Amino acid sequence: MVEEVTAALVIIGNEVLSGRTQDANLQYIAVGLNEVGVRLKEVRVIADDEAAIIRTVNELRAANTYVFTTGGIGPTHDDITAECIAKAFGVPLRRDPRAVERLLRQIKPENLNEARLRMANIPEGADLIDNPVSHAPGFRIGNVHVMAGVPKIMQAMFDGVRGSLRGGAKMVSKSVTIHMGEGAIADGLRQLQADRPAVEIGSYPFSREGKFGTVIVTRGTDPATVAQVSHEVAVMAESLGARTEEEPPPSY
Amino acid sequence: MVEEVTAALVIIGNEVLSGRTQDANLQYIAVGLNEVGVRLKEVRVIADDEAAIIRTVNELRAANTYVFTTGGIGPTHDDITAECIAKAFGVPLRRDPRAVERLLRQIKPENLNEARLRMANIPEGADLIDNPVSHAPGFRIGNVHVMAGVPKIMQAMFDGVRGSLRGGAKMVSKSVTIHMGEGAIADGLRQLQADRPAVEIGSYPFSREGKFGTVIVTRGTDPATVAQVSHEVAVMAESLGARTEEEPPPSY
Repeated sequence: MVEEVTAALVIIGNEVLSGRTQDANLQYIAVGLNEVGVRLKEVRVIADDEAAIIRTVNELRAANTYVFTTGGIGPTHDDITAECIAKAFGVPLRRDPRAVERLLRQIKPENLNEARLRMANIPEGADLIDNPVSHAPGFRIGNVHVMAGVPKIMQAMFDGVRGSLRGGAKMVSKSVTIHMGEGAIADGLRQLQADRPAVEIGSYPFSREGKFGTVIVTRGTDPATVAQVSHEVAVMAESLGARTEEEPPPSY
Repeated sequence: MVEEVTAALVIIGNEVLSGRTQDANLQYIAVGLNEVGVRLKEVRVIADDEAAIIRTVNELRAANTYVFTTGGIGPTHDDITAECIAKAFGVPLRRDPRAVERLLRQIKPENLNEARLRMANIPEGADLIDNPVSHAPGFRIGNVHVMAGVPKIMQAMFDGVRGSLRGGAKMVSKSVTIHMGEGAIADGLRQLQADRPAVEIGSYPFSREGKFGTVIVTRGTDPATVAQVSHEVAVMAESLGARTEEEPPPSY
């Protein structure tokens, strides 16, 4: 059995919890991790609150191979992620000359005020994460990757980091659309799942133009087994009189 | 000081963690809770995994006034939320005659197979939550509200429940758009926040047509104070030469 490599994501931001902003980072990271064989096990959205950030990061870094955080690394008073991560690791937060140098690629020296210099405060022992969009870096300390919350910047940071992750078995999936309500195929699905413990069979109901249907997603690490079970799902549903559409595997 | 009424949301679903599905429930619940004076403090996205569901629900129900869950209450083998909630509360899961009666509003008796009847398995002592869309109910036990994952159904369930929540002080907000990068106004914002601890001042950078700007959101329970501080933010930014637009308060 291949070792499971897991990750947790911490979305730091009052604006998501208040409903002001729709998170746009979870799905990008979920898909990207899956592509390198890292399984996203849990996501937490928490407030800009020191105690909550420290507690959450310490809990999740002990339980997962990797932790990613988004948000709270800008220049304003509500950007407290770097200092919280330093406290979580019990190391000092220091003005990092490498980070200052990067800020100067974007910001004129006369505009590099104290607030902007805060973006160069990095926990001791951390490596910087490149920010090709606006240069203010993220950082990695231990197994924790600290990234910006702005999607365009987060994506650039994540894409730069992704190649360094030590992935495990990659999950592939195949889906079949069944034009029948999930209640009618549930017994057959349960039996198939019991017979095929090496894959996960997920059932997602939908209604379209007043008709009920179900998308069945089969996921696993062996592409041949996934394709086989997905086909068995279609055959089972057809035996109950359902019209089905087997789809090519999506990229995740 | 008014008591703080808090909530946590648990999104149960492998499909969100794999990136297959973009969650569409967080924002609706966040905005709705805010409107009745309940503060959403934390959101967790977890897998269809018994141990994870039980642990998460027990941790969050002890720490918050209310807990909401979405997902995992359909008829298929991967719908395990009801049995996990029963285990979390240490009560039996029972076939509930009230729930069977509701299923029969939607499903013909001859189609009410064992899989569909699983949707009537409800933890002992729970109250049902109405599902005006497709009748299969959610339920409330203790401070935990268990709802469907399909957005249309979840929204109908949540709207029905919302009136029963005992809200605390309602948060209002006002935003001002500042056409200047946040690094330039950060020092002034920090000072304002220090002077005005009764409100939260959040800073959200944006770039539009290549120009940097910042939206400042002031939140608090007293509308007059929120409006006053938001105006002070605009005045501060204008004193630095920024063009600003004060916006009417949004509904959340």
